[in-house]
Formats: sequence, structure tokens, C-alpha cells
Amino acid sequence: MTQRGRFITFEGAEGVGKSTQIALAAETLRATGVDVVVTREPGGTPMAEAIRELLLTPRDEPVNEITELLLMFAARAQHLHGHILPALERGCWVLCDRFTDATFAYQGAGRGVPEERITLLETLVQQEIRPDDVIILDAPVEIGMARATRRGELDRFEQEEIAFFERIRACYLARARRSPQRYHVIDAARPLDEVTASVTSVLDGLR
Amino acid sequence: MTQRGRFITFEGAEGVGKSTQIALAAETLRATGVDVVVTREPGGTPMAEAIRELLLTPRDEPVNEITELLLMFAARAQHLHGHILPALERGCWVLCDRFTDATFAYQGAGRGVPEERITLLETLVQQEIRPDDVIILDAPVEIGMARATRRGELDRFEQEEIAFFERIRACYLARARRSPQRYHVIDAARPLDEVTASVTSVLDGLR
Repeated sequence: MTQRGRFITFEGAEGVGKSTQIALAAETLRATGVDVVVTREPGGTPMAEAIRELLLTPRDEPVNEITELLLMFAARAQHLHGHILPALERGCWVLCDRFTDATFAYQGAGRGVPEERITLLETLVQQEIRPDDVIILDAPVEIGMARATRRGELDRFEQEEIAFFERIRACYLARARRSPQRYHVIDAARPLDEVTASVTSVLDGLR
Repeated sequence: MTQRGRFITFEGAEGVGKSTQIALAAETLRATGVDVVVTREPGGTPMAEAIRELLLTPRDEPVNEITELLLMFAARAQHLHGHILPALERGCWVLCDRFTDATFAYQGAGRGVPEERITLLETLVQQEIRPDDVIILDAPVEIGMARATRRGELDRFEQEEIAFFERIRACYLARARRSPQRYHVIDAARPLDEVTASVTSVLDGLR
């Protein structure tokens, strides 16, 4: 019987280097013979990517906060049951760029959706499923924002104000404090190679 | 102060004549000086219509039943808060082609999603808001299917088998029996003008 893979999510605000670190982590794991699936939220399947498009496209119509929350979890249900769980059952390790922690951070702390509404949808969609490990790339908001801005046009989320991102960062750190055995907070304000070394060290501890 | 309008939904399976009856009902009400907004679910705003497209487009990827349910309610949240409630507050009567009863019928009775999950999302999105009146156009499944088939290509829902539509019909009728003061069941197997006369008589009773 194949051993179930590990489900590892990468979290953090804009510009903390998630995409870079996920790509490097996948390389590191593959070099040691682990089968790796890299994916992202919202998205990860054609239908979930179509929902992502709906969510991220700037539009004139104000998007109701419950609409946004339900779309996030609709994409998540499709991604989790159609892509992540089958990969884990094949024995792959799944590295996912954002997951439900991001919903608590962005829609919850960021937009003020009551936490219990998010918890209710988390249970509806995931039952008992949670990431085995959450790697939080943490940096002061100004550093992340400056990097995200240099990268080009900001999408609907990135147009939000600094205070919004301060709430997101605080939420991630609070969640990490609550479950220190599953959450790994990495200082992402340091030079790239130091951040990479910290991520590699976390991954080494999991194998 | 403007008096709040009435929120009236039209329900029924494929081919029972909902679109025709809604158009005629709007005409009848307007002739008596009522401001009427005609709308439909899923849809009713640009964003909700985009979600409708996602839901109704046949695709290779199997759609998870929770994904479908969450997309339905995402569209509903957008439609209700962005379009229906503002219209009711302006004093308009809102005639809506399908609403949450359709979710209980199609996703619940049809696809087997447990009723309590739908109730949970109904409460999340609508709180205490329910249609003032639900007009159910009821016809034996074979009659509705024959009409829908003649109309042209069937969408993803209409490709379902007869038993699916039998469950939907039974669900609508059971919901009507539970709240007879809000639900009006009309025999839609009769000739068009007789069905129209029944709908008009229900509307006359509401004014």
C-alpha cells in the first residue's frame, strides 16, 4: 500500500516570496526522491481556476463579502476533492500556495467576515481535513507591499490599504501561535538564500 | 415612506412554462400600476450571471456536489443583496425565476445533498429572508421533459434522467404542503391560458 503523502501549505501576504519558495521546495524534495505536486488556491483545477478568475478580476459591481467567501470555498471543494486528496492518496506530497488559513486571514481578519462563518464553511467542505504543515512566510507589510508593487499591476486584493495587510499578518501569526506543532513561521524579510535555507530545514524535519 | 414590494418566486422543473408565465405575470401586474422587476436564478447581476455560466456549461471535469451548492449560494448572495433587496426596498415587486426552493429540489432531492447542508447555507446567505410567495408550476415529468426537449439542446441539468426530475417534483410538492400559506401549486399540464388564469388569480389575491 502506498503511504499517504504530506499536505503542506505556504501562506503569507503579498510579496513575501511564496511562489519562489514553493518552486525551490519542490526541487529540493524531488532531489530526494519525493513525488511532488505543486498547486495553488484559489485554483488548481480548470473549474477552480475559472472561479479564481471570477474572484480576482476587478469589476464595477461591488462583490458581496459572502459571495466572495462562498466562491473561495467552492473553488476549494473542487480543488481538494478533485486534485489534492487524489494526489495525497497516490503518495505525492502536495505543496499548495495558500489554503484555508488565507481565507481566515483575508476574508476574516482582512474584510471582517466573522470567523465562525468561515469555520462553518471549512467544516462543510473539509470535514476533518487540515494541512499537515503550514509554512508561513512572514515579513513586515511595507517590505511585502514594495516587492508586490515592483512586480507590476496590482490585482483587486493588492489595491487594499496597508491596514488590511497588517490585519492579515497578525491573523497568520495568531493562528501559528495556536497550533505551533503544525505551523512553521519563517522570517521572509531576510535575503532569499537564508529564507530558502529555513524552508529546507523545516522540510528536512518532516521526512 | 415607500411600501416594501413583494418577493415572488416561480418554481418548477424543466418545461413547465415558468418563463412564459413570469412574463405574463409581469404584464398583468404592470397593467395595474405595480412596478415590477423580473429576474432569475442563478444569475440576475453580471457577477451572478458569470457564476451561472460556470454552473451550466457542460465540462469534462466532474463538478463536486459541494462546489455546485456553494456556487449556487454565491450567485444567490450577490443577487439577493445586490439586486432583489434594493428593488423590494424601492417598492418594486420582484418576480424571480427560481430561488432557494430550486436548490432544495435540484441539489437536495435531485443530487442527494443532505437537506441540513442546504439549510445551513440558506441561513448564512439569507438570514430570515424568504420569498413572500412561491408559485409552483407543477406538471407530470414526461410532459415537462417533452416540452424542454422540443425547445432545443439540453444543458447539463436537462441531460439528467427521468427519476431525477421525479424527485425534484416530489420535493417541490412536499415543500408546498409544509407551508401552504406561502406556496401556491398550479397545475401546469393544462392549456396555457388556463395556467395563466390560475397565476393571475393568485396574484389578484396578493394585492
